[in-house]
Amino acid sequence: MADTTTKREPDGVGPDDLTLKVKRAKTDSENGGGEVGEESETNVLSGFQTSAVLSDSAREKNIFIRGKLADQDAVVILEKTPIREDSLAEIFSGSRLKLEMKNDIYSTYRLQPPTHLNEVKTTVVCPATEKHIKKYQRQESFLVEETGEDYQAITLPYIQKQSFSVQWVHNILEKKAEADRIVFEDPDQKVGFVLLPDFKWDQKQVDDLYLIAIVHQRNIKSLRDLTSEHLPLLQNIFQKGKETILQRFNLPASKLRVYLHYQPSYYHLHIHFTKLGYEAPGCGVERAHLLADVIQNLQADPQYYKTRTLYFPLRADDGLLSKFKEAGRL
Amino acid sequence: MADTTTKREPDGVGPDDLTLKVKRAKTDSENGGGEVGEESETNVLSGFQTSAVLSDSAREKNIFIRGKLADQDAVVILEKTPIREDSLAEIFSGSRLKLEMKNDIYSTYRLQPPTHLNEVKTTVVCPATEKHIKKYQRQESFLVEETGEDYQAITLPYIQKQSFSVQWVHNILEKKAEADRIVFEDPDQKVGFVLLPDFKWDQKQVDDLYLIAIVHQRNIKSLRDLTSEHLPLLQNIFQKGKETILQRFNLPASKLRVYLHYQPSYYHLHIHFTKLGYEAPGCGVERAHLLADVIQNLQADPQYYKTRTLYFPLRADDGLLSKFKEAGRL
Repeated sequence: MADTTTKREPDGVGPDDLTLKVKRAKTDSENGGGEVGEESETNVLSGFQTSAVLSDSAREKNIFIRGKLADQDAVVILEKTPIREDSLAEIFSGSRLKLEMKNDIYSTYRLQPPTHLNEVKTTVVCPATEKHIKKYQRQESFLVEETGEDYQAITLPYIQKQSFSVQWVHNILEKKAEADRIVFEDPDQKVGFVLLPDFKWDQKQVDDLYLIAIVHQRNIKSLRDLTSEHLPLLQNIFQKGKETILQRFNLPASKLRVYLHYQPSYYHLHIHFTKLGYEAPGCGVERAHLLADVIQNLQADPQYYKTRTLYFPLRADDGLLSKFKEAGRL
Repeated sequence: MADTTTKREPDGVGPDDLTLKVKRAKTDSENGGGEVGEESETNVLSGFQTSAVLSDSAREKNIFIRGKLADQDAVVILEKTPIREDSLAEIFSGSRLKLEMKNDIYSTYRLQPPTHLNEVKTTVVCPATEKHIKKYQRQESFLVEETGEDYQAITLPYIQKQSFSVQWVHNILEKKAEADRIVFEDPDQKVGFVLLPDFKWDQKQVDDLYLIAIVHQRNIKSLRDLTSEHLPLLQNIFQKGKETILQRFNLPASKLRVYLHYQPSYYHLHIHFTKLGYEAPGCGVERAHLLADVIQNLQADPQYYKTRTLYFPLRADDGLLSKFKEAGRL
C-alpha cells in the first residue's frame, strides 16, 4: 500500500467540481462532441517522446511515464476513469462487442464503448524535476521507526535543508490558483482551512470521493508539530469538513475516513477526507492516522505526537531513508 | 477495505491467454477492424436491461451489474483494461485531448484514445443464479464510533450472546488440526503463541506474505481486553514473530506490517504479520492497529484500550451494526 501513495499525488491539484463538469459535458455535446468550443485545443501530447515507464498498475489501470515535451523533461500520468452507473444504458446500446470465449453460462467479450464515455484522466507535470521523476518511480519501501529524538536529530534537519516548495499550496490559499475548485473555506487564519478535491478524484461519482483540507496556518509542518493547542483547529476541520461533505455530496460521517499522513508528501498541514470503502492509496495503517484518534490522543496527552515513536514507510530512493541509515536507525 | 476482497472473483472466468489474443487481434485487422469475421457478432448486450449495480470499484475501474438478458437473469461485469506500454505512442498521437485545469507546472486533461486501444473487458453470466448475484453484491460499510461504555453496553453483550465458535482456533492450539502448517510455536501458556500462514497466502512468494500469530491464552477476546499486564505477551509475539519471519522467509522487520484488527473477525486474540507494500485486505487505518502503537499506548496508559473511543467499519448486514442502530449510536 505504502509505495503507491506518493507517486500518484501530483500534489493536491485536480479537476473542477461536479456542477462545472456537468456544464462542460453539455457544452461538448452542443458543440458536436467538443470538437470546437472554449476548452478544446490542439493535442499537446502528440509531440510527447516517451523515455521510460516509471511505474504502472494493471489493477488500477494507470501508468506513469517519463519523457520529453517540447524539449523539456515531463512526467505524464494516464489513468482510466471509473465506469459510471449513469452511462451504462448508453454503453450497452452504443458499443461494439466482440466475443472472446464462451463456456457454459460464462462468456467474455471485448467491448468498445463510445469514446466520450471512456476517457483517460491525464496529468502532465512539465517541466518535471528529478524529484518528480523519483516520486513516480516504483520503489521498494521500508518501515522506519522514528522516536521523538530521531525527529529532532534526523527528520527535522532534513526537511529544513530540503525546503520543499509549497508555493502551489500558497497559491491555493491566496486564490491565485484553483479558486474555482474550492468546495468550502473557513477564512479564519487561526482555525480556518480550504477544502478542495484531491487530484485523484474526478468528481463524477462519490465512490472514490477524495477531498483535502489545507489549513490557513503556515507554520504546521506535520502531525509531529501538533499539540493540544491545535485542538480547536483540528476539531473545526473535522466538524465543518463533515458538514460540508454531507451537504454537498450527501455522504454522512459514517461513510468517511478522515486522516493525516505521516510522513506527509508536503510539509504544510493537510487532512484527507476519503470515502469509507474506497481503497485510497495511503490509507493503510502504516501511514494514515485517523483524525479522531489524533484528537483523542492530544486530549489525553498534549505532547503525544512530540514524544511517541512513529512508524512510516519510506521508499528506497527517499533521501530521508539514507539519513536514517547513516544514523544507524535501520 | 475488507469488503472489496471477495467481490472481485468472477470464479476464474475471463478471456483467453495472450497468445490467443494476439492471434485474434491480427484476424481483426485483416478483416478490416473486426467488423466482419468469425468472431464479430451483433451486440447481444444492446438488449440488456439493468436492474441493479451489485458493486463497483472506482479504483479498479470495474462494475458488477444485475439485469435481464432475453428474459433470463444475468450478471454483467465490466472492467477497463490496463494501459499497455506498447500502445503509448499511438495513444499520444491519435487521441483527442481537453484541458481541465492548469496550475504552475501541473495540468490535467481528459483524453479520448482510439477505441481499439481502450476496450472494456466484459464478462456475462447467463443465466445467473441467486448465488451468483449474492456473490457479486457489495455490502456497504459504515464507520461505527464505540466508546468504552458502548463496548460494555452494546458490543460485549452481543459478542457473548452470539458465542461465535472458536473451536477451530482451539484445534490449532491443541494440534488437532493444521499442525503441519505451524511455522513457529512458543508453547508458554502465558506469553506463548502459534504462528501459521493465513489462508489467503499460498506461500509461493513473499510478496504477499501473510501470517497469523494466535495466542495460547484463551481469555483475551480482542484489543479491548488488553491492558499493561499483556505487555510481556505482546512484546514476545512481536519479537519472536519478527525473528521467525527473518529466519524463515528472509524478510527483515522493516519489510513487515504487524497489526491487530478491531473488530476482529473472531474473538480470540490474534496478530497479523503481512509484508509491507502488499495491500492486504483489512490493513486500512479504519480497522488495523499497529502492534508497535498498541504496545506504546499501553505503556503510557494501562487502560488505553478500555477507555478510548475506537472506530471501525461494519457491514450493512452485520448484527452488531443493528445493535448500534437500536442504541441510537449511528
